[in-house]
Amino acid sequence: MRSTLSPGELRRKIRAGEHIGNTSGSAPGFVQCNIVILPASHAHDFMQFCLRNPKPCPLIAVSEAGDAALPTLGDIDIRVDVPGYRVFRDGDLTEEVSDISALWQDDFVTFALGCSFSFEEALLEDGLEVRNLSQGLNVPMYRTNIDCLASGAFSGKMVVSMRPYRAADAIRAIQICSRFPAVHGAPIHLGDPLEIGIADLSQPDYGDAVRLEQGELPVFWACGVTPQVALQQARLPLAITHSPGCMLVTDMRNSQLAVL
Amino acid sequence: MRSTLSPGELRRKIRAGEHIGNTSGSAPGFVQCNIVILPASHAHDFMQFCLRNPKPCPLIAVSEAGDAALPTLGDIDIRVDVPGYRVFRDGDLTEEVSDISALWQDDFVTFALGCSFSFEEALLEDGLEVRNLSQGLNVPMYRTNIDCLASGAFSGKMVVSMRPYRAADAIRAIQICSRFPAVHGAPIHLGDPLEIGIADLSQPDYGDAVRLEQGELPVFWACGVTPQVALQQARLPLAITHSPGCMLVTDMRNSQLAVL
Repeated sequence: MRSTLSPGELRRKIRAGEHIGNTSGSAPGFVQCNIVILPASHAHDFMQFCLRNPKPCPLIAVSEAGDAALPTLGDIDIRVDVPGYRVFRDGDLTEEVSDISALWQDDFVTFALGCSFSFEEALLEDGLEVRNLSQGLNVPMYRTNIDCLASGAFSGKMVVSMRPYRAADAIRAIQICSRFPAVHGAPIHLGDPLEIGIADLSQPDYGDAVRLEQGELPVFWACGVTPQVALQQARLPLAITHSPGCMLVTDMRNSQLAVL
Repeated sequence: MRSTLSPGELRRKIRAGEHIGNTSGSAPGFVQCNIVILPASHAHDFMQFCLRNPKPCPLIAVSEAGDAALPTLGDIDIRVDVPGYRVFRDGDLTEEVSDISALWQDDFVTFALGCSFSFEEALLEDGLEVRNLSQGLNVPMYRTNIDCLASGAFSGKMVVSMRPYRAADAIRAIQICSRFPAVHGAPIHLGDPLEIGIADLSQPDYGDAVRLEQGELPVFWACGVTPQVALQQARLPLAITHSPGCMLVTDMRNSQLAVL
């Protein structure tokens, strides 16, 4: 069930508490973002972490310290415009809430990062299947043995998402996703999962396992869970992210992210 | 040993009989072409065959009937500017010569098709290895089970060339080659050779087998031998091609073929 609300209308419903939960399929055609909120004292290091690891952490917008607005992405109040938030204290998930006004600090900086929803839409528009969508499941995600480049307290292994394709479709998917570096870009691996430290595709670390048909290759994209893992490893006294699947819906069109 | 002659200087040496044999590595940076010469009576069907199968048969230039010039590619006399020619009579290879002036017919049409030398250069410039070049071998080529779209008397299976890469480099190679549709473009397959009817990589149908390292995938590109096979199957009374590796060296730069 895809909402036909505009991004602004959808955000107003979210702000009013009338839309709780997943934003997958809502406001089709518009960019949805992973969100990381942390104190200004760590903002420079986290920005560097994103710039050093652009495939899992593609930066789309950063707020001013203490400012809940993200003007390049729409008329946004980041304290109330995301349908679900995760609160981390000393690196541990302590609560999930739908409004962070009471937690807001005047040194908080918000990072908006690209999300796979955008490239999945581009794949679908080209006639390719997205298996997790066909099966009505969350995309399977795996921790790899690939080290991110560290920055300050932020470090960790790259997390990837996986979608299966026959070889010719995998080649086409690489072409399509290469146009969208701001939403993870081209895959980082395909074929043998062991090459990147994944022992068993049927046991994802996050999300759901999907069916792999005869003759299909697993194709792996850098995943927006990577910065969440790095954030947890940094063990900041207080940091906030969106809840999985509950993204910030922006006024930016997916097509605007295409570099070609 | 890469010649530093300009394309025009190299063609004059070839024309004078002073350069016999392979043009691989000569006039670096410039487009080299596969050549097919056949009577005007079959030119339309062959042109259609190329247009219907653009990945193995990327058309770069076509001459006027009876005219040995290809003005868009340089000051060319196709009867003497290719270091080696193959002559086919009723589909059978009957002779290899270095001058076709005596065989020329006033209804001959010349087709110049893109060649893998151009994209191999682009791969090398990006820092990727090209295994057949590293090993000093001809690229391995294989008949697949993929039917070309037929046109008139022209038909046959697609022939592919293979270069091995680790997955991340295969993804990069797909991006690089996607910029060059006029020289076979992106690969058509990677991974399991059996998927496209290749039973044994160590037994290429043309060229030499190359080494496949642990963790490498075979990556397959549509190959310019495909139109030669289609030409043989058409069993024309007389048709002429370049000899393998003995290409037409043109004044067009490889970079001019990049669509982006």
